[in-house]
Amino acid sequence: MGRMHAQAWRTAHRFFDLPLEPELTVVVGRDADRTARAARTLGAAEQSTDWSEVIGRADVDLVDICTPGDTHAAIAVAALEAGLHVLCEKPLANDVAEAERMAQAAGRALDRGVVSMCGFSYRRTPALALARRLVAEGRIGQVRHVRAQYLQDWLSDPDAPFTWRLDSNRAGSGALGDIGAHSIDTAQWLTGDHIEGVSATMRTFVDTRPLLGEQVGLGCRAEHDGPREQVTVDDAVAFTAQFAMGALGVFEATRMATGRRNANRIELNGDRGSLAFDFERMNELELYDAADPAGGQGFRRIQATEPTHPYAGAWWPAGHGLGYEHLFTHQVVDLVRAIAGDGVAAPSFAEAAQVQRVLASVEASAHADSTYVTVEGSPS
Amino acid sequence: MGRMHAQAWRTAHRFFDLPLEPELTVVVGRDADRTARAARTLGAAEQSTDWSEVIGRADVDLVDICTPGDTHAAIAVAALEAGLHVLCEKPLANDVAEAERMAQAAGRALDRGVVSMCGFSYRRTPALALARRLVAEGRIGQVRHVRAQYLQDWLSDPDAPFTWRLDSNRAGSGALGDIGAHSIDTAQWLTGDHIEGVSATMRTFVDTRPLLGEQVGLGCRAEHDGPREQVTVDDAVAFTAQFAMGALGVFEATRMATGRRNANRIELNGDRGSLAFDFERMNELELYDAADPAGGQGFRRIQATEPTHPYAGAWWPAGHGLGYEHLFTHQVVDLVRAIAGDGVAAPSFAEAAQVQRVLASVEASAHADSTYVTVEGSPS
Amino acid sequence: MGRMHAQAWRTAHRFFDLPLEPELTVVVGRDADRTARAARTLGAAEQSTDWSEVIGRADVDLVDICTPGDTHAAIAVAALEAGLHVLCEKPLANDVAEAERMAQAAGRALDRGVVSMCGFSYRRTPALALARRLVAEGRIGQVRHVRAQYLQDWLSDPDAPFTWRLDSNRAGSGALGDIGAHSIDTAQWLTGDHIEGVSATMRTFVDTRPLLGEQVGLGCRAEHDGPREQVTVDDAVAFTAQFAMGALGVFEATRMATGRRNANRIELNGDRGSLAFDFERMNELELYDAADPAGGQGFRRIQATEPTHPYAGAWWPAGHGLGYEHLFTHQVVDLVRAIAGDGVAAPSFAEAAQVQRVLASVEASAHADSTYVTVEGSPS
Amino acid sequence: MGRMHAQAWRTAHRFFDLPLEPELTVVVGRDADRTARAARTLGAAEQSTDWSEVIGRADVDLVDICTPGDTHAAIAVAALEAGLHVLCEKPLANDVAEAERMAQAAGRALDRGVVSMCGFSYRRTPALALARRLVAEGRIGQVRHVRAQYLQDWLSDPDAPFTWRLDSNRAGSGALGDIGAHSIDTAQWLTGDHIEGVSATMRTFVDTRPLLGEQVGLGCRAEHDGPREQVTVDDAVAFTAQFAMGALGVFEATRMATGRRNANRIELNGDRGSLAFDFERMNELELYDAADPAGGQGFRRIQATEPTHPYAGAWWPAGHGLGYEHLFTHQVVDLVRAIAGDGVAAPSFAEAAQVQRVLASVEASAHADSTYVTVEGSPS
Repeated sequence: MGRMHAQAWRTAHRFFDLPLEPELTVVVGRDADRTARAARTLGAAEQSTDWSEVIGRADVDLVDICTPGDTHAAIAVAALEAGLHVLCEKPLANDVAEAERMAQAAGRALDRGVVSMCGFSYRRTPALALARRLVAEGRIGQVRHVRAQYLQDWLSDPDAPFTWRLDSNRAGSGALGDIGAHSIDTAQWLTGDHIEGVSATMRTFVDTRPLLGEQVGLGCRAEHDGPREQVTVDDAVAFTAQFAMGALGVFEATRMATGRRNANRIELNGDRGSLAFDFERMNELELYDAADPAGGQGFRRIQATEPTHPYAGAWWPAGHGLGYEHLFTHQVVDLVRAIAGDGVAAPSFAEAAQVQRVLASVEASAHADSTYVTVEGSPS
Repeated sequence: MGRMHAQAWRTAHRFFDLPLEPELTVVVGRDADRTARAARTLGAAEQSTDWSEVIGRADVDLVDICTPGDTHAAIAVAALEAGLHVLCEKPLANDVAEAERMAQAAGRALDRGVVSMCGFSYRRTPALALARRLVAEGRIGQVRHVRAQYLQDWLSDPDAPFTWRLDSNRAGSGALGDIGAHSIDTAQWLTGDHIEGVSATMRTFVDTRPLLGEQVGLGCRAEHDGPREQVTVDDAVAFTAQFAMGALGVFEATRMATGRRNANRIELNGDRGSLAFDFERMNELELYDAADPAGGQGFRRIQATEPTHPYAGAWWPAGHGLGYEHLFTHQVVDLVRAIAGDGVAAPSFAEAAQVQRVLASVEASAHADSTYVTVEGSPS
Repeated sequence: MGRMHAQAWRTAHRFFDLPLEPELTVVVGRDADRTARAARTLGAAEQSTDWSEVIGRADVDLVDICTPGDTHAAIAVAALEAGLHVLCEKPLANDVAEAERMAQAAGRALDRGVVSMCGFSYRRTPALALARRLVAEGRIGQVRHVRAQYLQDWLSDPDAPFTWRLDSNRAGSGALGDIGAHSIDTAQWLTGDHIEGVSATMRTFVDTRPLLGEQVGLGCRAEHDGPREQVTVDDAVAFTAQFAMGALGVFEATRMATGRRNANRIELNGDRGSLAFDFERMNELELYDAADPAGGQGFRRIQATEPTHPYAGAWWPAGHGLGYEHLFTHQVVDLVRAIAGDGVAAPSFAEAAQVQRVLASVEASAHADSTYVTVEGSPS
Repeated sequence: MGRMHAQAWRTAHRFFDLPLEPELTVVVGRDADRTARAARTLGAAEQSTDWSEVIGRADVDLVDICTPGDTHAAIAVAALEAGLHVLCEKPLANDVAEAERMAQAAGRALDRGVVSMCGFSYRRTPALALARRLVAEGRIGQVRHVRAQYLQDWLSDPDAPFTWRLDSNRAGSGALGDIGAHSIDTAQWLTGDHIEGVSATMRTFVDTRPLLGEQVGLGCRAEHDGPREQVTVDDAVAFTAQFAMGALGVFEATRMATGRRNANRIELNGDRGSLAFDFERMNELELYDAADPAGGQGFRRIQATEPTHPYAGAWWPAGHGLGYEHLFTHQVVDLVRAIAGDGVAAPSFAEAAQVQRVLASVEASAHADSTYVTVEGSPS
């Protein structure tokens, strides 16, 4: 993730006309040696193991937080209070209280011109940004159905090793916070609506995972019959959702969908049309327009690579696709422009905190026999 | 539906080697004139408006019930008791009590060699029958995820006219019983498992529909601002399901998915592979086999039109697809063979009654804030 | 092919409102026993081994010729002269001279109200008939590119057995006449244009094929190292074509495209749009309309199963696909209607003879170092 | 193209472990002001308008030639003779004589350790590099069919403006050299074979194009009825090809395929399997393996984004795609490694000159009634 962000900071001003030119100054990590190596790889002049010291430096204007979720709040709030702009990876925090504290700090900071953004990077996929534009223009009318699936399979093998992402203390939740959070943000942003309540169920199919050699002090990869660690997060989650304006949402997130490497999919059905997207074909958007003449209707495959498409005009000719990393480059573009007063940084920490409240409601419902749970504190 | 069934009865023995040759004898309806016309169109020698009389005829061996759901039980039970074999359209009945009464009658009849079958015709799609074979062979291992969507859009237009399918007294339920029932049967059959409990939500997006001219005594199609009738069934339903062997099911059925004409889709993810199907491409099955060598894995598109595929060998050369009607022809083939003692007729009324219990549980959960509801009387 | 035709004759009037009701009277074959069996399977009352006798019968109005190509001319001309309507399988004949003789006979017969048609059945695919309609309406403008591939793979295995289709005396040519002829007819019909000249190359990849046991007087399937027969036709052919109105055609037909079971594909690019079709997904047509607003352009997948689509309204609801056999049913519908004076039977023998001239030109070019060969006697 | 190359040089060592770290020193152009701007955008410290001066500098080790084809030979030969490594955009030159002169210079230079490469960048697409690996491993057996199409549509509109690419003096040829050259190189490289002879046809559908305002000294875009310039290159080309080892090739390249933005497609059919690729879905490769068990065969969609796939392991997790620019980054990786003695730079100028001979043969055949033309001087 660090390499992705560094590439974005390095690249954005080469292809977009930015009001400011970002410069990667210092990389911060916990281990001095590894941080020094990272600084070299990422192309930073300096490294540090003390983020609080870096925040105080006069030559640092912005902090990009890529650490695990349990550290986000402390760093972000301190940085904002020190007057630094903040880009924070998603999910914003590991619980609602932290997320709200961050949102409040971000609100106060914004009054002083200090900008913050949460890294729900999929918003920067040209095809999805095009979808958002089409929805906003009314092209598909009033949305009735939201159908979002985020399907991965890297845990399908029961002997895939244990990682911190399977530890609830570090990661908060499993598939829910890791990938389901993306679906929630995307769905709310695309529809311009928010989720009012959910009914959910969660599953852990594989209870223990082998520890890697380094984790148990051995010099080799853990054997099949070696020590195993308890998995304390969900492998999969599914929930139905009620949107404020009436749409019915069906969400599923799993890391056990054998064969689906990164199928981040969403489909919207409105009363005038539909949109469908799958990140495995990230340069394409499917649009169905009910206003097409009878007999000539069908889902059309738009390659979101044309000059008129969001972000795409800065890159290659039509039909020459972009890749995953460009989402992060676009994120930098939008953030830098917002800092310079051109546009508003989104999603704000407040929006990201609302996603956190949906995540909490999903967990609450899953622990209460799937009974419908209202998302607290939703925007009215 | 009558024309479909008649075509199936007429065609089956032309392409399959059947132990018995079916003959369409008499068509039964309520209106004498319309029934006479139907008999001519369908190629039957006779017609009648009295089903009970027909059931008593010595030259009738089998009744094929294509009437609305509220009439199934009376006809089927009487026919079975009269010693006639019965093919009954799905859903088996409009409520659990009727379905169970039918299942009991079917069980008693079977002891006397009288065969019955419920018309969940999708089981006869070669690609799905191939999927069932692959699951049974263990090709995808233990199933963890069942993802079933049945998406149609013929009610997407809020001025699509009222029909008996929108009246709960006639149809029982809406999208749930009409198309969701297919997904439930397919999912349970493919997995060889059953649903233990569900958490559900239902929606009616369009509350009233215009009555057609004939329905309000006018000579023309009802105007946009003419009389409208109350819709008393669901436009859409979504539910999560717990399978007995541990799989997590996510089901959605809707007639409001603009642009999706008949997307009856199902995907299974097991620990050794996955299968995916969409009826809009009914001749194809996608298979992912995790045993393929690393680097060469992917979903493969199998055209289920080859001699080794279920049913397909009786038809055209590989790559020359079948259509919707062939499901019904295959249904006749399987039923006739079962009557002659070759194989067991499936789904039995007992299996179909279990689907009815799942439907009832879905409705119960939807009316109880989506709280998880256990399916009563499931097979142990 | 016989079963396909019989099914079509049996089915057409059940789903379409026909002015005449066809009746299958007599099946003709060479071997008495096999013909008797065929008559039973196909549902004919009688059989015969003497086609000339049958042609003379007063109760026979139409002959449907499904025999190998070297017999077409004799039967068809005799039947037409006897005043019988004729449906003749494609290709019309094995050489141009025969084809032209048949076309002349058909022309004379038509003056007496006797109708004939050549069985290029793909014209009756709803999606292709829709494509024809769209081209005729000008939806894609002037056609510049025709890209037709007919890819099969049943000869890919070098030990696939010898059949009469591999003998030039019986079959005329190989992939060219068998499947390339379909592409030629489809391309000319869709564009409303004709091919003026071609530059071609042909290949035979496997020179000899094992004879089946029955072919060499053995009781079992020929062994891998058993007797083999010389293949005297092409396995594959490719040619470029000049259309009269300026379009550039690229054609390829092969029975060696491993994995492509029946990929009968055609794409047209016009100055206002494009159309793409693949028979492996026969219910779909892809349309690109350059008049769509910039940024929203893309190939749309039309399911040609709607009431407004050619032929489709007679069948099932939208999204419920048709299969291969329905092409033949539609062929019967169009032929019967033409006999009753409703519409013109197409393709006429004259049109089919023109396809034969293109086939001959392709062979001539392939035998002359691919030098461009003008199609003789093209319509001016 | 300059921005693409600069991005590649900047990025390669950030993601790949390179033995040398490239540094962009000086940008050369014809116009001083524009070159200065380009240097800033591309991140170079210096600029120059005199390439011969730059070639003589001691601190320059490599020249990357992105100029029009008519300038390649002079620059490349001078650079090689000065001991500089050379990366030269494709096609290598505008005629065979120049290409061969460059190939000879490259051969002499290599003896002195000076490395050169022609920029057929599609070889660096992970999915195509995977295809090459599978062919080399024998996975699809002996190749019989090569089916290559390069379809674009940016000239489909007859009023798309004139550019130097439409002037044969500057560009050599049109679709042939611009995009057809890619197909030729890809086909020969994938098969490990070469084209022995061709039969070709070329078309120019739109004879004149409007000049842009700047081209005719006006301050605005040329009007529809303004001055137009003669197009002297092909809009489209199609040819069949004979490969040395027996495969039949069918090639088509056009910039008039309305709706096809960048469909660079290739399919290989071998006697043991097939491969299919379309650059519009550049992260996917389709593989058909005839060794799969009967009934379970089909084209499988491999996402070439996994650690074991060529190049892919340096980037993101499986399922997170790459874009067009990564081809150029991979090209830099391979070139830099070859310079350091790790691997051989390919395609060499000699290979690129062979592509040039195929291009010349295509033009010769097209000018000789499509008669088969042998490619001169092919490797024996």
